[in-house]
Amino acid sequence: MPKRKSAFKMRIRVYAGDRMLGPGKMELLTHINATGSLAAAAKKMGMSYMRAWTLVRNLNSDHDQRMVDMYRGGAGGGTATVTPFGKKVLALYQTMDRKSIKAASPYGRKLLKLLHKGS
Amino acid sequence: MPKRKSAFKMRIRVYAGDRMLGPGKMELLTHINATGSLAAAAKKMGMSYMRAWTLVRNLNSDHDQRMVDMYRGGAGGGTATVTPFGKKVLALYQTMDRKSIKAASPYGRKLLKLLHKGS
Repeated sequence: MPKRKSAFKMRIRVYAGDRMLGPGKMELLTHINATGSLAAAAKKMGMSYMRAWTLVRNLNSDHDQRMVDMYRGGAGGGTATVTPFGKKVLALYQTMDRKSIKAASPYGRKLLKLLHKGS
Repeated sequence: MPKRKSAFKMRIRVYAGDRMLGPGKMELLTHINATGSLAAAAKKMGMSYMRAWTLVRNLNSDHDQRMVDMYRGGAGGGTATVTPFGKKVLALYQTMDRKSIKAASPYGRKLLKLLHKGS
């Protein structure tokens, strides 16, 4: 395994009934929002177009309101737009992520120091 | 998939170089601390004894200081004790976990409300 930098990582999953929102879908939404393209977003994540398409289909069908609007065709292979509802969900998730990382940081640093001292 | 209660879950992983501490090892340490037995701790997690033993071996070999002392034999199949170093690591991890969940909670609740309203 390549030597990794010391760090701590957090994954937050939100379960709403039997539906799940986690870091994968949220990262995909972030890239769609930045690029306006599902193909480009999939590429950024090293994910197949088909896998990204399936994730977006689930995001859209799991709730009454869609999170991504897709328009097929055109020279660029179509566009994808995050809806206002999708943007709200994404913003809340990102704030939650940021706040929890901030709260964990001092303890994570102490833990890393303890592990380094012990090794 | 069975209907799940709405909730959010967090997994924090600490990477110290190429070694990783995550919720699985920390849960195992918690159960060893509570039961004084690797077999009992493994059972509580629905994990094979062999798997639990491997995790403990890694916890012990990844750092200069051991996190668990194991004593083989006896009627109960041996005992396992979390060392003072292991207890320190566990306590810091648990505090980090609690603090980050507390920080994320208000946003998690808002997100769940938004998802429920949207569905």
